[in-house]
Amino acid sequence: MSAKVGVIMGSKSDWDTMKLACDVLEELNIPYEKKVVSAHRTPDLMFEYAETAAERGLKVIIAGAGGAAHLPGMVASKTALPVIGVPVKSSNLNGLDSLLSIVQMPGGIPVATVAIGNAGGTNAGLLAAQIMGAFDPDIQARVQARRDRIKAEVLESSETL
Amino acid sequence: MSAKVGVIMGSKSDWDTMKLACDVLEELNIPYEKKVVSAHRTPDLMFEYAETAAERGLKVIIAGAGGAAHLPGMVASKTALPVIGVPVKSSNLNGLDSLLSIVQMPGGIPVATVAIGNAGGTNAGLLAAQIMGAFDPDIQARVQARRDRIKAEVLESSETL
Amino acid sequence: MSAKVGVIMGSKSDWDTMKLACDVLEELNIPYEKKVVSAHRTPDLMFEYAETAAERGLKVIIAGAGGAAHLPGMVASKTALPVIGVPVKSSNLNGLDSLLSIVQMPGGIPVATVAIGNAGGTNAGLLAAQIMGAFDPDIQARVQARRDRIKAEVLESSETL
Amino acid sequence: MSAKVGVIMGSKSDWDTMKLACDVLEELNIPYEKKVVSAHRTPDLMFEYAETAAERGLKVIIAGAGGAAHLPGMVASKTALPVIGVPVKSSNLNGLDSLLSIVQMPGGIPVATVAIGNAGGTNAGLLAAQIMGAFDPDIQARVQARRDRIKAEVLESSETL
Amino acid sequence: MSAKVGVIMGSKSDWDTMKLACDVLEELNIPYEKKVVSAHRTPDLMFEYAETAAERGLKVIIAGAGGAAHLPGMVASKTALPVIGVPVKSSNLNGLDSLLSIVQMPGGIPVATVAIGNAGGTNAGLLAAQIMGAFDPDIQARVQARRDRIKAEVLESSETL
Amino acid sequence: MSAKVGVIMGSKSDWDTMKLACDVLEELNIPYEKKVVSAHRTPDLMFEYAETAAERGLKVIIAGAGGAAHLPGMVASKTALPVIGVPVKSSNLNGLDSLLSIVQMPGGIPVATVAIGNAGGTNAGLLAAQIMGAFDPDIQARVQARRDRIKAEVLESSETL
Amino acid sequence: MSAKVGVIMGSKSDWDTMKLACDVLEELNIPYEKKVVSAHRTPDLMFEYAETAAERGLKVIIAGAGGAAHLPGMVASKTALPVIGVPVKSSNLNGLDSLLSIVQMPGGIPVATVAIGNAGGTNAGLLAAQIMGAFDPDIQARVQARRDRIKAEVLESSETL
Amino acid sequence: MSAKVGVIMGSKSDWDTMKLACDVLEELNIPYEKKVVSAHRTPDLMFEYAETAAERGLKVIIAGAGGAAHLPGMVASKTALPVIGVPVKSSNLNGLDSLLSIVQMPGGIPVATVAIGNAGGTNAGLLAAQIMGAFDPDIQARVQARRDRIKAEVLESSETL
Repeated sequence: MSAKVGVIMGSKSDWDTMKLACDVLEELNIPYEKKVVSAHRTPDLMFEYAETAAERGLKVIIAGAGGAAHLPGMVASKTALPVIGVPVKSSNLNGLDSLLSIVQMPGGIPVATVAIGNAGGTNAGLLAAQIMGAFDPDIQARVQARRDRIKAEVLESSETL
Repeated sequence: MSAKVGVIMGSKSDWDTMKLACDVLEELNIPYEKKVVSAHRTPDLMFEYAETAAERGLKVIIAGAGGAAHLPGMVASKTALPVIGVPVKSSNLNGLDSLLSIVQMPGGIPVATVAIGNAGGTNAGLLAAQIMGAFDPDIQARVQARRDRIKAEVLESSETL
Repeated sequence: MSAKVGVIMGSKSDWDTMKLACDVLEELNIPYEKKVVSAHRTPDLMFEYAETAAERGLKVIIAGAGGAAHLPGMVASKTALPVIGVPVKSSNLNGLDSLLSIVQMPGGIPVATVAIGNAGGTNAGLLAAQIMGAFDPDIQARVQARRDRIKAEVLESSETL
Repeated sequence: MSAKVGVIMGSKSDWDTMKLACDVLEELNIPYEKKVVSAHRTPDLMFEYAETAAERGLKVIIAGAGGAAHLPGMVASKTALPVIGVPVKSSNLNGLDSLLSIVQMPGGIPVATVAIGNAGGTNAGLLAAQIMGAFDPDIQARVQARRDRIKAEVLESSETL
Repeated sequence: MSAKVGVIMGSKSDWDTMKLACDVLEELNIPYEKKVVSAHRTPDLMFEYAETAAERGLKVIIAGAGGAAHLPGMVASKTALPVIGVPVKSSNLNGLDSLLSIVQMPGGIPVATVAIGNAGGTNAGLLAAQIMGAFDPDIQARVQARRDRIKAEVLESSETL
Repeated sequence: MSAKVGVIMGSKSDWDTMKLACDVLEELNIPYEKKVVSAHRTPDLMFEYAETAAERGLKVIIAGAGGAAHLPGMVASKTALPVIGVPVKSSNLNGLDSLLSIVQMPGGIPVATVAIGNAGGTNAGLLAAQIMGAFDPDIQARVQARRDRIKAEVLESSETL
Repeated sequence: MSAKVGVIMGSKSDWDTMKLACDVLEELNIPYEKKVVSAHRTPDLMFEYAETAAERGLKVIIAGAGGAAHLPGMVASKTALPVIGVPVKSSNLNGLDSLLSIVQMPGGIPVATVAIGNAGGTNAGLLAAQIMGAFDPDIQARVQARRDRIKAEVLESSETL
Repeated sequence: MSAKVGVIMGSKSDWDTMKLACDVLEELNIPYEKKVVSAHRTPDLMFEYAETAAERGLKVIIAGAGGAAHLPGMVASKTALPVIGVPVKSSNLNGLDSLLSIVQMPGGIPVATVAIGNAGGTNAGLLAAQIMGAFDPDIQARVQARRDRIKAEVLESSETL
């Protein structure tokens, strides 16, 4: 089945975080593709990726980047698909620069920003699933089942304090 | 037609920002509802709103709040629909507290966070439209038309420097 | 004797910090209970916990959480008991997000916030004891005795510089 | 009836914020006293105030200060009563300095910190009331009644969007 | 004479700041062009502008933008000319978001970042002049003469304290 | 010879930083004393120390503390001697809380604040020496000689790049 | 009588803040001089000023500057006199940049930093007086008298709440 | 061939970062010189270095420093050559102090600031090359070739996710 979610990242060093998004998509059985696409080092590829995303059947794009993180916002400027931005933890400012570079988009071009770092990686995958699940009861049910399982884990963990 | 997007806010004082989301939804002809729902002052209403959102036909919830802004994340914890969080500008810390309270969700429950303040209000409306547009070519076309119009305005504005 | 202080935390990973609160309560001979209660993963349990706290005999609730830390504020919205919030150190922003998410509550629902991380864990236990001590001379005396002991340790430590 | 809550502030310029705490105490019918006590300009008065607070019948002290705000923490070091700290908005750093100076107390001496500025003023009064209410059902009922009234106001405000 | 410096900005609202760069260039008799080019609203124009800059005879590009400011970095990714970035003051975070979005570029694509706001506007013009002056003694002499004049103004201002 | 500089710190854990101040004073042959004096755990000792400092012959007090660092400012409130404050690096906020708690003193009671952490420890010793050196040519000469030596080290280090 | 304290500032626009230092010196009858000396626009004058300060009889230098505030640190590098740095409030970052640029000096060259803005202006004058007062009982007595007067004002202000 | 770019740093401890600038210059075959020049410990050398830079044939100066980083701005005040500032990561504030001390220059004296830490080291070398390349097609071609090579590496890295 063709990919419904595109997972891209500015550098291979973002993979540890972005892999978590892929893990969730796999777990929820949502077809996805993954690619390194750098806003600054491969700008033309980035534009081409964004421009062709809808026609290739993608419904959501997840883009992760760190520092002066321009990938999510620039991809969003070239597609009307929803774009989820993951602020990857940066080496000096702990991802605060990544977060502000992604979330503070001007009125007109939104990026759906999630948490800095690994929590953001996981949540990007879940948000993509929730977006698709709003229009596909099966996916929504799988999201809900995952929540129920995690809830049970929390309750159990309390016993071991 | 019944509402597809729910726009809620923690306090009536958030309305100036949240009205911008409603303006976009109206402009793009997407049916929506609006309501003051406070995480801290009407917690039961908040839970009930979130729990019944999907069955009432909503596809996306937009939630705006300021300061220790718990509304978007708590609503997200009670529905599998995608929730967009708008960090309303706060009086002392300029919305940095609102932003961090909304975006830094733990792995498991994502909130699609947009920019602080008015840009975020507008973009929340647009993001909701883009999410729906991914599954509805008419809405996507209207989003794209809005972008084309704004692009023309930018080009024009350059003449007047 | 039934618990007078409830110590809850958003995740088992908060235990290292929250255990310090429990240690103080034990040391001061104040009965307490402890539990993992997640605002985002077990929201209904959280509400139930808060709603029944007073009738179960609790006088103070200590709630610790990290990142977009909603647990203390949401518990506070569902009980008129005093709620002490502990901002657990977060992995990326060092607990600044936790602190702002807990302390910046809107007028109407206060959270008694203590320091980020381990100092906050210890101080949450002490603050609970001081609150109870204001109405119970024995507890107040034990708090004072603990202070006297620590004062002696400080004076002694000076000899070893 | 003698004062149960002491409201002190580092400077008369803090009164606008601290008056909100007094307003709440008056509204909830809790006897209080108010005073300017400066950590830096009247340090001896501060120590004397703190040392005699318990024997004069106070149950809670609310202390507000701005900038390098030492009043709450120093008062807390001289009394075993619970001390609530209000970070008054400062002219240059918007109260972030006040907040950190108050909340980041070392393990051993807690300060129950509330929000920066006016929300903190109101919430300090409420927190004092909630602390007393945990041991006095009448006060707790008045706190709950105030919450119910505010909840009704929120619901009503939604009609006027 | 054809333009040597290109002054671009993400929105007409940046003009107050960017005009200061133009003022300096005019004062120093350096031919320049000015244009609104938005990274997010006119991405293709931005790429075309950057790609053709060198062949059109530009030696330096000055790009100003606010918030999630992607214009300077994206232009830099598409030209080997030096790009000067001006972080325009943003409405909520005072330009700290603009600064981090511009300066924190990953290794490989530099942006020569100047101060936030109006000081940055003026200094962008001066930096462009200094870059050209390193290869053109006449321009360097004009830069030096401007400095001498300002030095005289400082000395004079001291008399009026 | 009796101590001219008093070096105090809020906790023995501050010693690594404060030892650097003592090292400089020893190196420059300025008699000093050292002591753990905690604002929060030994407040009365702190007041007594500050009140008697001048009559005991001290000319300068160096006070180091971390977190909600009240020691330097409170000592300054009880003596007219110059007080140098060293913001010790804190475990969660890297000393930003220490810095703001020390430097943001209200008009009326200054604290001469130096850098966070070890650079501050060294510089506190040097600043005390420079203050004394302004009134004692021998000390000033020793300060100058130390600077000359360090300058030579810098020049030499350049050879080894 | 020749000046004992030199008050310098990077720009005439710093005068509002720096005048407060001069006011205190006048009030305490300490001879001073004042001058605009810019690190960046009159660097040679700055070096000459610093180099000749001691021989001209100055005992303390007060230097105020904003933004990338280099004046206090550079003056300190050229004189062994104690240098007090005043972080003037900057237009975009509220003086946080000024503060960090002044206080974070490397080990070897201290700057005695006071609070941002007007409180810092006043306190710079007082700190200079306290430094001189440590070696001149008359000045110390005048400092103490000023404190006594302000203490009385605080006590009085409490009556008017 | 004589040096065209001067690479200076405030301390030998900055070498790890500044070496990256030298590596790029070497790779691109641009003659450079390197030196430790401390603003605070060798101020006269710094002024002499800056004053003679242009006549010695330098076209660009790269200056790296950390903390209260005055070297880039002070060098810029003494030469009309373009000065690139590298904010070296500082031990306590992660280079945020270095960044603000370098970038927030007042109108009149620009510093071309690059990213904090290692990315900034590399980019300083590249920016110097791009400045020279704007006036030397051979250098510009080598810059472009380096970009092409890195682009290929990015594309390749995508295969290995």
